[in-house]
Amino acid sequence: MLKVKKLKDNATVLDLMLNECYIGEGKEEFIVLNNNVKIKTGEKRKGFIPVRIKKIVPPNKVEIEVVKEQFTVVSEPEQKIRLFLKSDIIRKLEPQIKKAVNLIRNAARNGRLIILRHHADCDGYAGALALEEILISIIEKKNKKIWQSYKRMPMKAPFYEYGDALKDLSYFKEEISFGKKPLLIIVDNGCGEEDLLALKKVKLYDVDIVVIDHHVFAKEINKVVDVHLNPRVAGGEGDITSGMLSYEIAAQIGNPNPIYPALSGVADKSRNEFLEPYMRLAHKDREFLEKLAKCVDFEAYNLRFMESNLIYDFFNEKQKRTMDLILSEVEKRTDERKIIIKKFLKHEKLKKGTLYCLELDKTVPIREYPSPGKTVGIAHKMNKGPRITLGFSKDMITFRIDGVPFSIENALKALKKKIPYGNINGGGHNYAGTIKFIPGVGEEVLSSLKKIIKS
Amino acid sequence: MLKVKKLKDNATVLDLMLNECYIGEGKEEFIVLNNNVKIKTGEKRKGFIPVRIKKIVPPNKVEIEVVKEQFTVVSEPEQKIRLFLKSDIIRKLEPQIKKAVNLIRNAARNGRLIILRHHADCDGYAGALALEEILISIIEKKNKKIWQSYKRMPMKAPFYEYGDALKDLSYFKEEISFGKKPLLIIVDNGCGEEDLLALKKVKLYDVDIVVIDHHVFAKEINKVVDVHLNPRVAGGEGDITSGMLSYEIAAQIGNPNPIYPALSGVADKSRNEFLEPYMRLAHKDREFLEKLAKCVDFEAYNLRFMESNLIYDFFNEKQKRTMDLILSEVEKRTDERKIIIKKFLKHEKLKKGTLYCLELDKTVPIREYPSPGKTVGIAHKMNKGPRITLGFSKDMITFRIDGVPFSIENALKALKKKIPYGNINGGGHNYAGTIKFIPGVGEEVLSSLKKIIKS
Amino acid sequence: MLKVKKLKDNATVLDLMLNECYIGEGKEEFIVLNNNVKIKTGEKRKGFIPVRIKKIVPPNKVEIEVVKEQFTVVSEPEQKIRLFLKSDIIRKLEPQIKKAVNLIRNAARNGRLIILRHHADCDGYAGALALEEILISIIEKKNKKIWQSYKRMPMKAPFYEYGDALKDLSYFKEEISFGKKPLLIIVDNGCGEEDLLALKKVKLYDVDIVVIDHHVFAKEINKVVDVHLNPRVAGGEGDITSGMLSYEIAAQIGNPNPIYPALSGVADKSRNEFLEPYMRLAHKDREFLEKLAKCVDFEAYNLRFMESNLIYDFFNEKQKRTMDLILSEVEKRTDERKIIIKKFLKHEKLKKGTLYCLELDKTVPIREYPSPGKTVGIAHKMNKGPRITLGFSKDMITFRIDGVPFSIENALKALKKKIPYGNINGGGHNYAGTIKFIPGVGEEVLSSLKKIIKS
Repeated sequence: MLKVKKLKDNATVLDLMLNECYIGEGKEEFIVLNNNVKIKTGEKRKGFIPVRIKKIVPPNKVEIEVVKEQFTVVSEPEQKIRLFLKSDIIRKLEPQIKKAVNLIRNAARNGRLIILRHHADCDGYAGALALEEILISIIEKKNKKIWQSYKRMPMKAPFYEYGDALKDLSYFKEEISFGKKPLLIIVDNGCGEEDLLALKKVKLYDVDIVVIDHHVFAKEINKVVDVHLNPRVAGGEGDITSGMLSYEIAAQIGNPNPIYPALSGVADKSRNEFLEPYMRLAHKDREFLEKLAKCVDFEAYNLRFMESNLIYDFFNEKQKRTMDLILSEVEKRTDERKIIIKKFLKHEKLKKGTLYCLELDKTVPIREYPSPGKTVGIAHKMNKGPRITLGFSKDMITFRIDGVPFSIENALKALKKKIPYGNINGGGHNYAGTIKFIPGVGEEVLSSLKKIIKS
Repeated sequence: MLKVKKLKDNATVLDLMLNECYIGEGKEEFIVLNNNVKIKTGEKRKGFIPVRIKKIVPPNKVEIEVVKEQFTVVSEPEQKIRLFLKSDIIRKLEPQIKKAVNLIRNAARNGRLIILRHHADCDGYAGALALEEILISIIEKKNKKIWQSYKRMPMKAPFYEYGDALKDLSYFKEEISFGKKPLLIIVDNGCGEEDLLALKKVKLYDVDIVVIDHHVFAKEINKVVDVHLNPRVAGGEGDITSGMLSYEIAAQIGNPNPIYPALSGVADKSRNEFLEPYMRLAHKDREFLEKLAKCVDFEAYNLRFMESNLIYDFFNEKQKRTMDLILSEVEKRTDERKIIIKKFLKHEKLKKGTLYCLELDKTVPIREYPSPGKTVGIAHKMNKGPRITLGFSKDMITFRIDGVPFSIENALKALKKKIPYGNINGGGHNYAGTIKFIPGVGEEVLSSLKKIIKS
Repeated sequence: MLKVKKLKDNATVLDLMLNECYIGEGKEEFIVLNNNVKIKTGEKRKGFIPVRIKKIVPPNKVEIEVVKEQFTVVSEPEQKIRLFLKSDIIRKLEPQIKKAVNLIRNAARNGRLIILRHHADCDGYAGALALEEILISIIEKKNKKIWQSYKRMPMKAPFYEYGDALKDLSYFKEEISFGKKPLLIIVDNGCGEEDLLALKKVKLYDVDIVVIDHHVFAKEINKVVDVHLNPRVAGGEGDITSGMLSYEIAAQIGNPNPIYPALSGVADKSRNEFLEPYMRLAHKDREFLEKLAKCVDFEAYNLRFMESNLIYDFFNEKQKRTMDLILSEVEKRTDERKIIIKKFLKHEKLKKGTLYCLELDKTVPIREYPSPGKTVGIAHKMNKGPRITLGFSKDMITFRIDGVPFSIENALKALKKKIPYGNINGGGHNYAGTIKFIPGVGEEVLSSLKKIIKS
């Protein structure tokens, strides 16, 4: 017997599934599925009527056919979220995860155009690939050509640039002109001050937006996007990664490769409390994951803005061969970089620990891997104990910190106050981040930052 | 009764309209429309014969069918140009406008491939969009897919680069191999020394070229292109803008949005004599147009080389919402830039007025809006009275001038003479322009320029 | 009577030609063409059976039909190589040339995807176009759309970058997923240390690789690629150019324009022994070829990464007009550059000859033709006698040498040893090359290099 669902009270047109059957009630010329979904049919009907959804044109046009078969009404099961990670923080995020799951699943099932933007680093890729795996499996089942319904685009910058929004809207506009509502997903970028303009621009065109990020966020973000999923909203820190959050979403919808959350946790230095459960899930140890993270990072650097499925060969039966090739290259380059660092890294004693400084413009070849940021990371790992490692160029400082108290937010605030004419901004975490400024204040910023560190 | 036209004496195959009827005269195996257009039919006919044009393959192949219906001969009306702007300068430009109208209209109607290149600033966009609106309306009427017949490409550089010509020719070559003659239109660029090589390259392939510009032009240009429309040819200055000229052309063919000429006039500081009639036409005041110009300029900066119809949302029912979003962003960034300028702008007294100097490499963040040039504009507006504002970097000086006599052409001449080994070039207007040079002569150029200004 | 071939003993599935007939022997359920090619048919046959090849799916699936016609067996003629250049070195390279010919011809005939990568200079273009001409003629005969089977991509860098490999693999992967084996040809790049990573990456996907180069090669290269054709392998030097080698290959398969080897020889300064035979073949004198080389070099500079057939207009009936236009431009720019050089070039006496030095950052406009390297070449030609001309910038030295003993390999070795923290690398020839380093050691490298030169 045909099963027809009762649409939930708060559901909207966007929650309808194509070709599914729902029970409606005839009222004048409408068939009413709930208070939000009333379908004009032109015929006056009474009583309960089963209908099949033939076409959905958001925001509110629905085409149906009345079902003639015998039917039984089933209540749509309350959607349940089963999070893998057991943690207070992630439990608090359940409502956002649920909403993200619904938006993403419905968009894919209904063939809406989805653009998935992600930061081009290891965490960004981990999150994006977890989602991509389940998106592609849904779209392929619908016999749709992938490229008609889905695009993934890595972002080199640590934020969603206005120019990115213009590109995405160029894809979205055709879809919108057909009356369809596209979906934008942003992974490991998207929640900060610098993202707001681009997001607002996209929102002008009524695109659904899901941001999955773990960086410091702008308060306004929650008003701009449909879902902002971020451990910091629930009192957490950056070490519940974008890869972990994306995996939790993807795992509600399909079966993504379980390696992604552990990989991202290793790359972004998650504490053991979060990392270990995911490592057990992945059946991989830290050493292996660290090697893999180096490879993915190198590949991401070189893929730049390419949407390429080559990256999957680090996760399938080709894994060993691709890793062997890339790992030895990364290690060779790291060793070469260490020789440079040994020669040029300067140090001075702090009250507690040591401050290491590297002049990036003089020591890091441009447009070569490892990047200046990675180079500072290498320099930092070459030393031990409480320490700060600063790399500075004419308009940028990037740092790594261990065992020395430091707040990037406070440092930025103090620098902005002291040098208001310096166009100072930046971001990151307390243990690793970046400060940008105009070259005219380079020396002033460096000496002020040193003072902040020493105080 | 069928109306058939008499083809004008100086008309060529390119002036024929597809599916239109013309009267010809049978002579031996030809039907002769005029001295330029003689169609071989293989049959000997005599007397007047009405024909319908079935196919045109430039340079001179025409396929016809003889019309059997009753007909009456009408003389093709003398094409009339009704210019909106009443001004001696623009009246003198009527011949060029007429020729541009004919070339553009015929190319669009006959489905020839058209590439529209334009400077990626407010004036460039204004002119290009005025033309694009009427081009697209013609192409759509012919049921052609737009992208088969038309491409618009913004140019960041202030001239048509040789590399641009190579790209355009790559599109043109397929068309040319089918025996069709494409059309290149260049708006707000294209008339200077630096454009000549690229234009000559395109002309090697016998492409029609229309240049609509208002910058200082190279004398040779008139020999290279088919139409060079420029107020300076008629003794005018740069303040009859590319947007105004393009609008006058477009308005002969269709109904472009009347806001474009006023917008460009505000952006490029046209005198009231030219600006006010267009403002009345647009029913918009200067304050609104200045805000709109800021928005279009910001969008143009971020669109870079994209051919996007997003720009139209500043001119349609979305206007208010797009302007609100972008204007507040532009103003925020302008305010931030002002703080930097206040700190770093230096000044010295001139005999008449003041000279302000800003070291751009130290004060303007790279690849961020506002650009160095815009920053100098902001600095200039922050002061009053007779003044020159110079922004200099290691290989470039950009300036704004008010109330101080200055000739960019004379300054360039003097600098080139004094520093012949400096690779000095540049351009613009007497109130705003740019001088480029090699870093090795930076100080020499700056001190020489100051001397010129002070003298 | 139908001619059927006997497949050679060492031939594999990849050597089979579609629609050709071969003689096989029935053994159980197989028809055996040779020890490598055994086709399962499902029927038990005995004796000699003629078959026609209907489909080839590498690595080893072959579909056949048994031929019913009368037939005669012909032995497949031993493939003969007739090299145009008579020289011991090139004779020693015959095995590699033969293998390259087979790989390239079979790939084209069997419709496998071919990517042709080449250095974007005159030699690189000469070699690539010689091969492209014969590739396109084969593919067109098969009624294939060119772009489905073939892509040519110029490389600006002097090596095959890892990012290039990722792009190429994105094209290759679809082909590979259909079970086909693509072919990568690299001309005038590809044999050095810096190429290895990218080549190994491509080889992970079992792509056939042919490298045609004449630069100093890494020993490992022979193990990585299928063919490494390089005069240095046979004790030659760089003056048997990539254009000459590519021409010799192409001429075994079809009829490429005979101008390419002479053109490349002039561009890369081949000795008369090699150059003159090719000049006679081309019926062109040195003066003409030098002019043409300048034009191709300018066009290559501006085409950048474009795959454009515009370049052929320097070799067909448009040649005179394209050369006239470009040559006068190149000469104008060279004259302008000479004025700068005259002012800024410094010189000091050597024991034998003179050392000329040019500070590139101060004297060469960025992103303008001539490039820094070309500028040093111009400076070098402005002087006579034994001399070294060095152009240096903050992270690079480029040099030209005449009549002064110098070994780039020894110089690099000595610099690396003396300044191990300088990230020093480079390459080229003993008469022209480049040394790169980090800015922090710029002065140290320059003074050490001068010492090496003076010693």
